[in-house]
Amino acid sequence: MPERAHAGDPREPRRVVIIGAGLAGCLLATLLGRRGLDVVVYERREDPRAAPPERGRSINLAISARGLAALDQVGLREQALSRALPMHGRMVHDQAGGRSFRPYSADGRRAINSISRAELNLALLDVAAKTPGVNVSFGCRLTQLDLDTGELRFDTDEGPRLARADLVLACDGAFSAARRAVTFRPGFTFGQDYLDHRYKELTIPARDGEFALDPDALHIWPRGESMMIALPNLDRSFTCTLFWTAEQFAALRTPAQIVDHFRAHYPDVVGLAPDLVEDYQRNPLGSLATIRAWPWVHSGTSVGAGVATTLALVGDAAHAIVPFFGQGANCAFEDCVEIDRCLAESGDDWPAALAAYERRRKANCDAIAEMALDNFVEMRDRVSSKVFQAKVAAEHWLERRLPGRFVSRYELVSFTTMPYAEIPDRMRRQTRLTALAAAGIAGLGAGVLRVGALTSRGRRR
Amino acid sequence: MPERAHAGDPREPRRVVIIGAGLAGCLLATLLGRRGLDVVVYERREDPRAAPPERGRSINLAISARGLAALDQVGLREQALSRALPMHGRMVHDQAGGRSFRPYSADGRRAINSISRAELNLALLDVAAKTPGVNVSFGCRLTQLDLDTGELRFDTDEGPRLARADLVLACDGAFSAARRAVTFRPGFTFGQDYLDHRYKELTIPARDGEFALDPDALHIWPRGESMMIALPNLDRSFTCTLFWTAEQFAALRTPAQIVDHFRAHYPDVVGLAPDLVEDYQRNPLGSLATIRAWPWVHSGTSVGAGVATTLALVGDAAHAIVPFFGQGANCAFEDCVEIDRCLAESGDDWPAALAAYERRRKANCDAIAEMALDNFVEMRDRVSSKVFQAKVAAEHWLERRLPGRFVSRYELVSFTTMPYAEIPDRMRRQTRLTALAAAGIAGLGAGVLRVGALTSRGRRR
Repeated sequence: MPERAHAGDPREPRRVVIIGAGLAGCLLATLLGRRGLDVVVYERREDPRAAPPERGRSINLAISARGLAALDQVGLREQALSRALPMHGRMVHDQAGGRSFRPYSADGRRAINSISRAELNLALLDVAAKTPGVNVSFGCRLTQLDLDTGELRFDTDEGPRLARADLVLACDGAFSAARRAVTFRPGFTFGQDYLDHRYKELTIPARDGEFALDPDALHIWPRGESMMIALPNLDRSFTCTLFWTAEQFAALRTPAQIVDHFRAHYPDVVGLAPDLVEDYQRNPLGSLATIRAWPWVHSGTSVGAGVATTLALVGDAAHAIVPFFGQGANCAFEDCVEIDRCLAESGDDWPAALAAYERRRKANCDAIAEMALDNFVEMRDRVSSKVFQAKVAAEHWLERRLPGRFVSRYELVSFTTMPYAEIPDRMRRQTRLTALAAAGIAGLGAGVLRVGALTSRGRRR
Repeated sequence: MPERAHAGDPREPRRVVIIGAGLAGCLLATLLGRRGLDVVVYERREDPRAAPPERGRSINLAISARGLAALDQVGLREQALSRALPMHGRMVHDQAGGRSFRPYSADGRRAINSISRAELNLALLDVAAKTPGVNVSFGCRLTQLDLDTGELRFDTDEGPRLARADLVLACDGAFSAARRAVTFRPGFTFGQDYLDHRYKELTIPARDGEFALDPDALHIWPRGESMMIALPNLDRSFTCTLFWTAEQFAALRTPAQIVDHFRAHYPDVVGLAPDLVEDYQRNPLGSLATIRAWPWVHSGTSVGAGVATTLALVGDAAHAIVPFFGQGANCAFEDCVEIDRCLAESGDDWPAALAAYERRRKANCDAIAEMALDNFVEMRDRVSSKVFQAKVAAEHWLERRLPGRFVSRYELVSFTTMPYAEIPDRMRRQTRLTALAAAGIAGLGAGVLRVGALTSRGRRR
């Protein structure tokens, strides 16, 4: 234990436990280890360095500016980018098999990065495990956490295992086991709101060793009520994700029904996905929920001479969001960096640091939760409307003319580290400007169409 | 078991269990017993016919039209009214000790009814226990419910107890133990939203054997951010409830602080509440939450040859609301009556009946949850504003002139059985009319004031 740990000083917990060795857990363990703390990380799953990944579960994610800034803190930015595929825009596939590319940024040069969640997790786990003071225990499923006594109980293959902690950091995801210690406390506001939509993953394998679709784009098949997306993988395959309602999924049972439906609605995919029917029938149906929790920091009642244990919720355990802005992991990474920053600012005063952490992050996480829900409508529906296209064109036109003063919501979320909560306000201020520009562009477009119509009429004559 | 119970017919469950012998559990058990079903009710608490009530916990509630209609179904309407105190309006107490009475209805004749929760529960329990087919087991705390096997496990003073059920009706309140069987199922939308405000009960005892305040009113001390209310009891005491923020409660510690605060903000209460300091220091601080859950009906996966068990959430277990419209119990009673009605309409086809129950009740329960939150602002703040008073006066004026066509929200909620969900729409349609009338009355009022001012000026001369 480092010398500066003062036994009995409640501001500096002696035993720090992180629940979950996922993306947030590994990043936070690394940051805390570097602050000189001893940290034990308990993970429910087996060591991923030995076990194969699960089938059909969130195979890839999109890392953007916020995630990269966090990875930079632990020296993983370049490594992550070297194993990621940049996507510079959306490729929208229409129902007739046509496609059109829409850049994410006005200059066309900014990209979000498709990366394998498993691979990113491995890289973070490697860094965490090598950090002095950090220990990771796998195959430990938390079954009980008592904030009054500080006792944790885990199920393992070798039977129950006990541990004690002064501080527990819950990085165990949307369905956090650690959070159950406080879920039914009076005053704990909690919400889990499921979408009617579920998701299922399919695969478009490499074709003759090459990508079967443009790898520089996030592919979208917007279909109004529902949609499919596809992200490229390093092995030149694409992982497709269907976002359909439960009824839509249930309606397709036989191979013929599945193939017919894809022929009618996703005609360009059928020839590219040889395992379509098998994937559809075998892969699990995932749920999509927004999780709200408040407060994020909880303490037990001290028992005897002891100091009560504190629990802090981090990442998805505090605020899981739907995946439609590609911000879940980015946002969780920001939580970890904020905790580290608050510790630095408070001189490692944990109560003060955690209070500042939850105060600063709450409004930001609420804002991205809202924007993520809204982006689902944008992706599956608005993205294919003429009005939306005019709006995006207008935004990019304004961005080029007013660099820095006008930036689209997508860019503020994905290509800056501006606090999420400031974005909706900024968008409201920009809206009038966009509307004016869109009207201008539409007018210009109408003019062009009119000229074209006159010309073709002239020709017909 | 009655002859018409067909073993093996999934539409008619053989073993029906109700969790909770509170208001909803007892009413529902009675209604189902009368339909010829065998019902076992399990209650966590000891038999209230033997045990004393808890201190400082929701001693009285307000029963209005919806609750009375439900009680009528089991022949308890008159008995309940004979043990209740009608409150025909609000008595608003200002900070100077002044008071003014505002009738709830335009004709001044309609009343909500203050009744002891414990007493109403006892009456319902008596009726349930006497209903053929109904059995009630006390001291049974549900610890496990498995919808796949139909097994229930209870903790009792004599150790664990097992039971089996084909149908479980969760009437066990806002923090339902039965609901935990489905809380973490994918797709179960759930929310518990706490107010910043807490509550604490105080007592104004009878004075010289008489009520110390007018017993014909619900008393309100609106104080902007916070408030106190008082409801009359049969023993001529009043139960007061403080609704303050946690910070406001925490700020008063010493007897002097408590008395000084009440002298400054509730001056007319200090002389009426001899146990003020003791009540304040000893009574528990309650929390106030809105609970949302969806769906309300869940089934397990059938195991072996068995038929899977169904769980239905009823009353507060499905949709607990804040108490500011006095509708929690009234709304739960409506749930029970709706289940009974759906069974009658479907010819005792349980799956069809429960599907109809949740479909019909959801929007209504969402609507009253919203109105209950809104009424808190009305009671603690708007009720003392001049604009609000003009609005109520205008509403009552319109109601007298347009009987049946114009009815205030308070009256629609409290004095009719119009589905809650229809009320907000109706109010929007009425709003323009009120605004016009309020302007008219205000103009008239201003005219009167002007005349008055002239007259007094005239007199001063």
